[in-house]
Amino acid sequence: MTAAIQQLRETLAEVDDLKRAAAVLEWDLETYMPPGGVEDRAAQLGTLGRLAHELFVSERTRRLLEAAEAEVAGDDFDSDDASLVRVTRRDLDLDTRLPADLVAEAARAGAANRSHWQLARERSDWSLFEPSMRQTVEISRSMAAAIGYEGRPYDALLALNEPGVTTSQAEALFGELRAAILPLLRDVLDRADRVDDSVLDRELDTGRQLALSLEVAQRFGFDLERGRQDLSAHPFCVPFGPGDVRFTTRVRGTARDSSLFSSMHETGHGLYNQGIPRSLARTPLWDGASGGVHESQSRLWENVVGRSRPFWNYLFPVLQSAFPAQLSGLDAEAYYRAVNRVRPSYVRVDADEVTYNLHIMIRFEIENDLLEGRLEASQVPEAWDAKVENYLGLPPPPVADGPLQDIHWSQAPMGSFASYTLGNVISAQLMETIRGDIPALDGQLAAGEFGPLLDWLRARVYIHGRKFTPSELLERVTGRSLSATPWITYAQTKFGDLYALD
Amino acid sequence: MTAAIQQLRETLAEVDDLKRAAAVLEWDLETYMPPGGVEDRAAQLGTLGRLAHELFVSERTRRLLEAAEAEVAGDDFDSDDASLVRVTRRDLDLDTRLPADLVAEAARAGAANRSHWQLARERSDWSLFEPSMRQTVEISRSMAAAIGYEGRPYDALLALNEPGVTTSQAEALFGELRAAILPLLRDVLDRADRVDDSVLDRELDTGRQLALSLEVAQRFGFDLERGRQDLSAHPFCVPFGPGDVRFTTRVRGTARDSSLFSSMHETGHGLYNQGIPRSLARTPLWDGASGGVHESQSRLWENVVGRSRPFWNYLFPVLQSAFPAQLSGLDAEAYYRAVNRVRPSYVRVDADEVTYNLHIMIRFEIENDLLEGRLEASQVPEAWDAKVENYLGLPPPPVADGPLQDIHWSQAPMGSFASYTLGNVISAQLMETIRGDIPALDGQLAAGEFGPLLDWLRARVYIHGRKFTPSELLERVTGRSLSATPWITYAQTKFGDLYALD
Repeated sequence: MTAAIQQLRETLAEVDDLKRAAAVLEWDLETYMPPGGVEDRAAQLGTLGRLAHELFVSERTRRLLEAAEAEVAGDDFDSDDASLVRVTRRDLDLDTRLPADLVAEAARAGAANRSHWQLARERSDWSLFEPSMRQTVEISRSMAAAIGYEGRPYDALLALNEPGVTTSQAEALFGELRAAILPLLRDVLDRADRVDDSVLDRELDTGRQLALSLEVAQRFGFDLERGRQDLSAHPFCVPFGPGDVRFTTRVRGTARDSSLFSSMHETGHGLYNQGIPRSLARTPLWDGASGGVHESQSRLWENVVGRSRPFWNYLFPVLQSAFPAQLSGLDAEAYYRAVNRVRPSYVRVDADEVTYNLHIMIRFEIENDLLEGRLEASQVPEAWDAKVENYLGLPPPPVADGPLQDIHWSQAPMGSFASYTLGNVISAQLMETIRGDIPALDGQLAAGEFGPLLDWLRARVYIHGRKFTPSELLERVTGRSLSATPWITYAQTKFGDLYALD
Repeated sequence: MTAAIQQLRETLAEVDDLKRAAAVLEWDLETYMPPGGVEDRAAQLGTLGRLAHELFVSERTRRLLEAAEAEVAGDDFDSDDASLVRVTRRDLDLDTRLPADLVAEAARAGAANRSHWQLARERSDWSLFEPSMRQTVEISRSMAAAIGYEGRPYDALLALNEPGVTTSQAEALFGELRAAILPLLRDVLDRADRVDDSVLDRELDTGRQLALSLEVAQRFGFDLERGRQDLSAHPFCVPFGPGDVRFTTRVRGTARDSSLFSSMHETGHGLYNQGIPRSLARTPLWDGASGGVHESQSRLWENVVGRSRPFWNYLFPVLQSAFPAQLSGLDAEAYYRAVNRVRPSYVRVDADEVTYNLHIMIRFEIENDLLEGRLEASQVPEAWDAKVENYLGLPPPPVADGPLQDIHWSQAPMGSFASYTLGNVISAQLMETIRGDIPALDGQLAAGEFGPLLDWLRARVYIHGRKFTPSELLERVTGRSLSATPWITYAQTKFGDLYALD
């Protein structure tokens, strides 16, 4: 008779196949699907999602999991089998608590609200989106109630994205960050003229931009035998398995909106997935540890590497030889400074490193206020405007560049924004350890040698897939729990130097 | 309580969703998937295929079908409900006989053998493909045995593709065709110098070729809001639903290998699928009547239209203005003659209309010999070479242009080649009726007006989807059963004129 763990693996492999197939359909929807495909595709995705869910929460899976738990009881915590059983238990408990009807309602509402969001954004009219926002809040509350929580409803939603992280922990983190960022930002803005980024407005050929961003992705270590780059309106990365990890980028006409940073960001996600071993494939362990840990890799490669001085010492000559006319008379240092200029703005995805976390705080606070009844859907724009003034010192934006800028609130449940800031914080915490382990790192980056960094990340982070919670992973890799300090030190040092603060 | 037919429709919709999702994964595999994706994709396709099969042959579906049969007992044979129940019964009886494991094995083997085929073809080395061929034969035999047959294993495989057609009927048809084609070919080759096709060797820009072939597809009536054209090594057409029908093409450097005819061929398939009403979607009725009837549409648009004199009266000026330097000093008649030159060659997809069916006979005979044990996988190349000499009068080809030229034998079961010749025969039989109904057809084609022809096909053929067997459809549309005579008359008339035979 086959061991329960083996039978469990077979069932989980089927569930994974269904989810990955759905991911292929979603990738296609964003990249190549003709407009007429919407109706058929929605039906196909609905069926795949329902079947995957039914198979996963079935009585049979539950029985196999119980038997497997008994089988692996004495195994090492870190072993593949023990981790598989532990993570499957966590997922199954969560998925079992969510009623199928509620999940279906969320999917239906999400499909409809996505187009309401598009229209509302196009017309910059909150009233067109307000009913959708109300629905998102209601479904999020119902889901939080179904999952269960002790103090704060956001805790239940965090459990879906960031296992082990609580709302008050996140609030404390945001508090520390705010206390450091606001004075830093003030100092920087007092010396705004010390960094000139006008070079970024020069026009660059889009074909050559795309070729260059793909070249950088490969240089970082992204394997095109096991992945692709395509175009889509909103860049994303999606893994179909260890042999096929894809990301998308977008390209516009100037260096300011170049595809390069978007590609480096998605490449970071892609490197993570390409680095998770095939031995974990077709199980719930074959993925990143959490949304935040995944984001730590996109932010690490995009910012900590891709906006660093050594990186630009390497890349600038390459960029200059791709665009000799546009970039003549400049040097690496000037370009490094330009891509790091700090400038409060309305749109999160265009934000610099200093202000980015402020954009997340705005959303995190509003989500909590909505969930806990301190704010109505109708009041979101005014709350938004107040926070934009408070944090970013800017006058109220058009609502299209305010609460309508992100697609996220058209999809229930809320609760995924915190992962972006966790990603920033984790990337800096990892980098502190990496710098200890690889003292020659800056020299390597300046030589375009990314192998030692990638090898370190693969051996210490990627190899574990989804075995550990974010804190378990950080404890193992950095020797301490999640902390805002490394990011604060990183930002103060980097921007203190750039703006010649005291 | 919901009527059984309604519940049956819901289950069939889920089965269809799974199959269409698999089709998206297969399309992607041929167009964009990186090489490393093979293993994961094979697993995903295996699971989707198995789940679709299990759901379809489940006890529940069977009970619903029985109840639905009672409900529609008095309905008109041609009605949607009666047809749905009748075709579902036929499919269910067939699929019930096929064990789920065998179906999953075929899907897994197909995904793996596709890449073996690619490599073997690249290196023109049969030994690299021989194990795959053996596997295809074994799976085909197992499937034939599972389906059951009285005389010939090929009967069982034909039942999957061409309901109502038997091996001996196909053999009789091939016999009639052979008896007409071989003397026609002899006569034509005796006067080979009467048609000059040297113009086809002029080099044409590939980008402009692709644009032109897409323009012709649209001109025929292919709707790009509900479809796409992409590139792949082996052109194909695949429908994901009424709103998303895709075809691929390939492009090479000369007019001889232009993408035009390949695109017109796949466009024919695409027009068929785009013309099947949405009311039949997500049921077994939303597809072509059979492989052969589907092929009748690709051959009708590629050859009966696309290689006709009136069509070239329309298209030649368009082609000439796309390639003024290469096509100067020519006229429509010269080009019409060039694209119809008869010349025995190795590659099926490049074959002229006279020799094309001989290519199919080679494959049909070898498949029967393999299935009935008269031939081993290792002996395929020598059997191939002998038939190439016999039918086409040519010396042995490199194996890449011999039995490795088609992807088909990487996929089990065999048995689909006969549909190509059925397609030719059916296209001519339909065209005979069409010419009676639309006397002005040639004038319309010469004016680039394809609407009346497409409308006729939609109203008489496409609208029925898969309601009828090939003979039921032909009886309804042409008033008689499948016959080789219209094709033979068509070929003798057309090539008699072209080569000025007596």
